[in-house]
Amino acid sequence: MSIWTKKCRRVPGCEIPSEGDPSGSRAPITRRGMIVKAGAAAAAAAAFPAPAISQGIREFKMATSWPKGLPGLSSSAERIGQAITAATGKRIQVSVFAAGELVKPFEVFDAVSSGVIEMYHSAEYYWERRSPAFNFFAAVPFGFTADEMAAWIHFGGGQALWDELSANYNIKPLLTTNTGVQMGGWFTKEVNSLQSYAGLKYRMPGLGAEVLRRLGATVVNLPGGEIVPALRSGAIDASEWVGPWDDMYLGLHKAAKFYYYPGFHEPGTGLSTAINKARWDSLTAEERGLITTVANAEYTYSLAEFNANNAKSLQELRQDKNIEIRKFDDSILKAFGEHSGEVMAEVGAKDPLTRRTYQSYMEFRNRYTPWSDMAERAYLNARSLPFSYGDKG
Amino acid sequence: MSIWTKKCRRVPGCEIPSEGDPSGSRAPITRRGMIVKAGAAAAAAAAFPAPAISQGIREFKMATSWPKGLPGLSSSAERIGQAITAATGKRIQVSVFAAGELVKPFEVFDAVSSGVIEMYHSAEYYWERRSPAFNFFAAVPFGFTADEMAAWIHFGGGQALWDELSANYNIKPLLTTNTGVQMGGWFTKEVNSLQSYAGLKYRMPGLGAEVLRRLGATVVNLPGGEIVPALRSGAIDASEWVGPWDDMYLGLHKAAKFYYYPGFHEPGTGLSTAINKARWDSLTAEERGLITTVANAEYTYSLAEFNANNAKSLQELRQDKNIEIRKFDDSILKAFGEHSGEVMAEVGAKDPLTRRTYQSYMEFRNRYTPWSDMAERAYLNARSLPFSYGDKG
Repeated sequence: MSIWTKKCRRVPGCEIPSEGDPSGSRAPITRRGMIVKAGAAAAAAAAFPAPAISQGIREFKMATSWPKGLPGLSSSAERIGQAITAATGKRIQVSVFAAGELVKPFEVFDAVSSGVIEMYHSAEYYWERRSPAFNFFAAVPFGFTADEMAAWIHFGGGQALWDELSANYNIKPLLTTNTGVQMGGWFTKEVNSLQSYAGLKYRMPGLGAEVLRRLGATVVNLPGGEIVPALRSGAIDASEWVGPWDDMYLGLHKAAKFYYYPGFHEPGTGLSTAINKARWDSLTAEERGLITTVANAEYTYSLAEFNANNAKSLQELRQDKNIEIRKFDDSILKAFGEHSGEVMAEVGAKDPLTRRTYQSYMEFRNRYTPWSDMAERAYLNARSLPFSYGDKG
Repeated sequence: MSIWTKKCRRVPGCEIPSEGDPSGSRAPITRRGMIVKAGAAAAAAAAFPAPAISQGIREFKMATSWPKGLPGLSSSAERIGQAITAATGKRIQVSVFAAGELVKPFEVFDAVSSGVIEMYHSAEYYWERRSPAFNFFAAVPFGFTADEMAAWIHFGGGQALWDELSANYNIKPLLTTNTGVQMGGWFTKEVNSLQSYAGLKYRMPGLGAEVLRRLGATVVNLPGGEIVPALRSGAIDASEWVGPWDDMYLGLHKAAKFYYYPGFHEPGTGLSTAINKARWDSLTAEERGLITTVANAEYTYSLAEFNANNAKSLQELRQDKNIEIRKFDDSILKAFGEHSGEVMAEVGAKDPLTRRTYQSYMEFRNRYTPWSDMAERAYLNARSLPFSYGDKG
């Protein structure tokens, strides 16, 4: 997945940064000269009415890393803002801002950390240059599905590690959103064997990109809005994005013929809602409870929304005779797996907190996989056996 | 799954009814003479302080169908009660009652319908004699997983049908809990082929039971607390319950050697929290919103709790040399599938609202299955390929 779509170009103040540098450590490419810098964000914040403290009313600004209207992600952030406002009886009024409206998309972390704004909705792997441990709270290659991630976060020690990590940056994180299993991507040519990856020009961000590099691919990062032209011009041969719903929104199905699955690199990407920790600590226990409840409710909604819409969009794609949907060959998937394990082990050795996070993640994964093999996997395989069932047969 | 455990015997007023008659239409077997009847429930309700209406405080009694302490289910109901109380700032104070403490377990529906109590936490398939449509809002053989069910309820038209069905009984239902994929059950002998099912004495409730009957099994229903003695005496050869966590709590692993998967009959059982509709309608929009938010948050929690604990319990079972964990042979699973389809079609033809519910369910299932095959199923199969990944290799 990447967060940038061609829609960004139409959003005032929306900048499309390189995904290759999500830390915001380099000077951003400014488009149209409309980018709001951190200092300017503070000025923009000052333009809002002062909190009506006498009435106990606070206004929380939530900056997202998503262009307005991005399916599943923008809608999730909007729903969270509305739900917190409603749940607190408007004592906390959340305003949601698209990428660049108030803060640049990859600067939402700094803006919340410093208290310039109160909240962000984003993906934690964007902060991996601060600590590689952040990857584990979004998605890692051959890692957790959405359900597994929730089990680790809420009943496997994940939240405590995440709290410890984010507290270093004055941030309180909550797991609020999940895209579900992503697709492997769109290809202009078939990939039948490992040899197909040698020299393949592939667009993919994050740890999955490193896996593909080790298979000989030339991995580049492109903003969403640039993927279609790049596929058409031959600048790239393939690109992943999210899943049928978001991919069709971007028009990828019109630029490449082969659609491969599964997406080993993001098997259930968790998105987070984070709050400035000093603000969080200043809330009452009841308010913190309400926000946490909203967070977990949205996890149900967002995953359901992605799945329902992906199913619908896939139905359309399957009826399109120009598109061929293919499963990656097992030899390719095995190679993805081997290299993913290596990349993960290297990432997991980088610093003490990342090591502890990696160990917790792996321990849970090793315990969980036999269960998921007997439960979800065995059931879904059984359901796919050739028997008639209603209209299916 | 069944709801009765040996713990029930230790709960004052807890009765263990036959699962074969979940409608409560026959006279219940009374144990210890402590059963609280509907009339008595009203008397018990009267013993509570009158609602402090002047302060806007209301006391909601939630009766569950679960004995106290039943893993995953009691804990879910308790969490919901606490969360609603907290979310409403104690304006709605929910007291949660174990099976039989206030209302008999299968009479919670009538008690809420009539307004004797305000809420229940139960499984909708227990009301299937009122309408077979209720099955679709809990679990059906080869039906939805937990994620699929949430997608259908929230983004596939499921909630509207459920509201329409339950409104006939003055009830507002909410999906709040899911057990995840259940196991196939414990067997005292191997089942290697379809022939093994002829005459097999199997304990299973619900629509799955009808499937097994068509394969020649003698299906009985037994309260949870009676399963272990029945397996030991040879009165039954096999029994399903829930999954590793709940099964070990009941001691099934000490009474049968072979543990089969997957549980085709309950691939993601949804449990519900329902509210007397007149009371629901009398709530403010804000209060209804808070309760709905709590419901969806609990879906995340309960599924995560079941999965995390099932993984842990399975780890113990796998280390037990007396237990053999086996996958049902595909020939058996296919036969389960064929008969499930038939049973579902018959159930789905029973009355107009059930027909519409069946059609909605099947339409969503037919659209969804290709997506889940490419997403969850393909991913989990890829992850199970032989490659080294951390400690796995």
